[in-house]
Amino acid sequence: MNFDKIFQSAQEAFLYYKKITGKEKAAFLKRIADGLEAEKGSLIPLASEESNLPEGRITGELGRTAGQIRLFAKLVEEGTWVEAVIDHADPERTPAPKPDLRRILTPLGPVVVFGASNFPLAFSTAGGDTISALAAGCPVIYKGHPAHPETSKLVAQVIHKAVIDSNLPIGVFTHVEGGIAEGQALVKHPIAKAVAFTGSFTGGKALFDLASQRPEPIPVFAEMGSVNPIIALKEKLGANVASMAKAFVGSLTLGAGQFCTNPGLIMVPSVHAETFAEAVKNELEEIAAAPMLNEGIAEAYYKSLESMKERKELEWVQVAKAKDLIKAYPALAKIKAGDWLEDDHFQQEVFGSFALMVVYENFNELYAIAQRLHGQLTITLWGEDAELSNKIDLINLLEEKCGRLLFKGVPTGVEVGHAMQHGGPYPSTTDSRYTSVGSGAIKRFARPIAFQDMPQDLLPDALKDENPLGIWRMMDGDFRK
Amino acid sequence: MNFDKIFQSAQEAFLYYKKITGKEKAAFLKRIADGLEAEKGSLIPLASEESNLPEGRITGELGRTAGQIRLFAKLVEEGTWVEAVIDHADPERTPAPKPDLRRILTPLGPVVVFGASNFPLAFSTAGGDTISALAAGCPVIYKGHPAHPETSKLVAQVIHKAVIDSNLPIGVFTHVEGGIAEGQALVKHPIAKAVAFTGSFTGGKALFDLASQRPEPIPVFAEMGSVNPIIALKEKLGANVASMAKAFVGSLTLGAGQFCTNPGLIMVPSVHAETFAEAVKNELEEIAAAPMLNEGIAEAYYKSLESMKERKELEWVQVAKAKDLIKAYPALAKIKAGDWLEDDHFQQEVFGSFALMVVYENFNELYAIAQRLHGQLTITLWGEDAELSNKIDLINLLEEKCGRLLFKGVPTGVEVGHAMQHGGPYPSTTDSRYTSVGSGAIKRFARPIAFQDMPQDLLPDALKDENPLGIWRMMDGDFRK
Repeated sequence: MNFDKIFQSAQEAFLYYKKITGKEKAAFLKRIADGLEAEKGSLIPLASEESNLPEGRITGELGRTAGQIRLFAKLVEEGTWVEAVIDHADPERTPAPKPDLRRILTPLGPVVVFGASNFPLAFSTAGGDTISALAAGCPVIYKGHPAHPETSKLVAQVIHKAVIDSNLPIGVFTHVEGGIAEGQALVKHPIAKAVAFTGSFTGGKALFDLASQRPEPIPVFAEMGSVNPIIALKEKLGANVASMAKAFVGSLTLGAGQFCTNPGLIMVPSVHAETFAEAVKNELEEIAAAPMLNEGIAEAYYKSLESMKERKELEWVQVAKAKDLIKAYPALAKIKAGDWLEDDHFQQEVFGSFALMVVYENFNELYAIAQRLHGQLTITLWGEDAELSNKIDLINLLEEKCGRLLFKGVPTGVEVGHAMQHGGPYPSTTDSRYTSVGSGAIKRFARPIAFQDMPQDLLPDALKDENPLGIWRMMDGDFRK
Repeated sequence: MNFDKIFQSAQEAFLYYKKITGKEKAAFLKRIADGLEAEKGSLIPLASEESNLPEGRITGELGRTAGQIRLFAKLVEEGTWVEAVIDHADPERTPAPKPDLRRILTPLGPVVVFGASNFPLAFSTAGGDTISALAAGCPVIYKGHPAHPETSKLVAQVIHKAVIDSNLPIGVFTHVEGGIAEGQALVKHPIAKAVAFTGSFTGGKALFDLASQRPEPIPVFAEMGSVNPIIALKEKLGANVASMAKAFVGSLTLGAGQFCTNPGLIMVPSVHAETFAEAVKNELEEIAAAPMLNEGIAEAYYKSLESMKERKELEWVQVAKAKDLIKAYPALAKIKAGDWLEDDHFQQEVFGSFALMVVYENFNELYAIAQRLHGQLTITLWGEDAELSNKIDLINLLEEKCGRLLFKGVPTGVEVGHAMQHGGPYPSTTDSRYTSVGSGAIKRFARPIAFQDMPQDLLPDALKDENPLGIWRMMDGDFRK
């Protein structure tokens, strides 16, 4: 396959698209959001059918997707996101005069986006990656996920219509179908300037390696999931066994355990381990098996459970009640902290509603577990204020292991806002310096450029003296509007 | 060699050091600046002797180094650099309550820094990379450059004294000596979280490959230089032949042509090519050959010139007057745009005071050259306002090829400020999203972390409701202090 024409068209579109105003970009993005909502009637049943996710969930996801698009529209319409910095000239400075220097974020260029199977809308064709790249000013070449091809095509049509209605060059967005070979060819194309991916570690790592080994290496933002540990401290758990078991099981089994922030590891103090395990078992009894995204994923889930069953260190609190072609029966096993510490294999994500309960005897064991933890999207620490206040060292260490640290609630339910960080240390993502959810996601697709002694009329509006956009800027070291 | 102890000590130091206040970090950095100035008497002759750079230049570089350290001290003392973002909770929101979410930049962890041979102070032991990493809260393992070992050791002593006087753990800074094998071992150590390097493309690319292929890939910020093209437009050049020849030659031969922003490529319109070449030749006649950093570098310079001489496409305006063991005699050759476009080899940097003058016939040729250009640290465009205003497409394209675009003056003389961007598209650096000069350099060594529903007393000061640091923060979407 030869993607030259697609990329050349994207590159041409880029040189035009990167220079349109924030207002124009916002109008384009809003057209996409409106278009998705207008297609609601066909989109929801279609995505539900292709993903096995209930219509209620897809309805919520559509709302989230449109909301997220409008968040980025608002962000680029307002304009401060470009991080404008102005250092005025000082011709009198000695020994050398100081030049006029102004800096702004500029988009990277055409971006290749791979959608996620588990979010047919919010992390797919018009999902967070595509939209944040478009918002930054980058054309997108999107490879449709084979798990929901028709949904992807329908959403692509909505985007195409928005491109045309906004009088933008068609190279701003291209929908491509294909498998692994097509994906590799896209990543290797010399015009591609960045890659965004949401999926498995194996997939993300393969793209990362490919992109790093190109003649011109390019960044890969791969969100590869993690086990999102929950740590329960003694006092807190002792006082809330029932409600915590309920919250944990709700998060574990949400969407058949297919969320990237699904808690696959929970650490409980030995003194409450039995009562908590029992409460969890009772909760699990109440949960009906839910269909997974497809049969391949369900098969992989049961295969992982089989391999877990071979481990003598595990004591099963709840075995999967049955093996199903498509539905995931939840499962949970207990392991002693000492055994868990012996083998990194116990940190591996089982995609689906399985969790490992690690029973720790004392703080030293808990600290040792924290030291051993791989990079995570999230870590949740449940403790009473009093017990947290003497765990500063533990909290300090946990910060090194995750992108988001929670003190209440559960890791699933990733808020789309300005303060969200959805991206943690490797191997949860390939680049912990960026987020794939929330307005910060736009920063993945831009780099700074400085203009030295540029004539005023040539400067981007964001950098002109009179500040025509009315944005926040750093002027000679101070924030000003 | 086994660097385990060094890295373990750095990691322990990290967990303490990352949590000290901005004021404490600033005091530590200022002690380094003061210490360097106190050692002026020994440092200047030593660095001058080891680098062959004149004492005047080293004196200036020491001032720049101390000034740069104080800039970072001020930055962390003030505190806004951490990009604090607060999204308040909304327990009443439907369908789900909104959590309290707060985000801040947190340091990456121990950083490996490689110094540059061409800046024994400003880009070496206490140079921009070390200082911006320390400012971010990262311990540094610094590998001394073999070109100036004694200077490096003396500066390391100054830093060690500042560490002790500031009551910091000694693992905050470690000075290591060695060659390529030691450098590789440092980059491969599992505790290392980032690498900063200034030097050749070969060196930087090798470190990048090594770091990407680690079990846990880590970012490499390699500034690998470029040819920093200057583009002269017809009207502007026609009216200023003499002054532009002088400015160009001054920049080309500054520091024996060993600056990373040295202009190794200049594009001139054919109509003025002869008069400009003559003016340049006259200027070059006035320039005394200057000693290069060491004999190996001088040898490489003359070897590159020899290989250039084999190219029939070149017409020599000025050949190096002699070959010297240490001094660089400047040289300059002309080439037609058509020939230049045929071979990417003509884009290769010759480290030293050599430049290629590309003669273009018309705008189409100039645009074709711009399209062909590799990524550059800087591009300079000399034009009258009127000729610039109809070159918007060219400017638009040039933005894609560099980190800093100049409209006056010369690329050498990299301002240390907030708006500086010293880092361009590959191959000028391995990561165009970051700068290695100016206050923005601190961002290389930090990643965002979000805290969800964290109790107020556990939050970092930068995120507490009452804003005890008085910094600028984004609160529910608006900037506030």
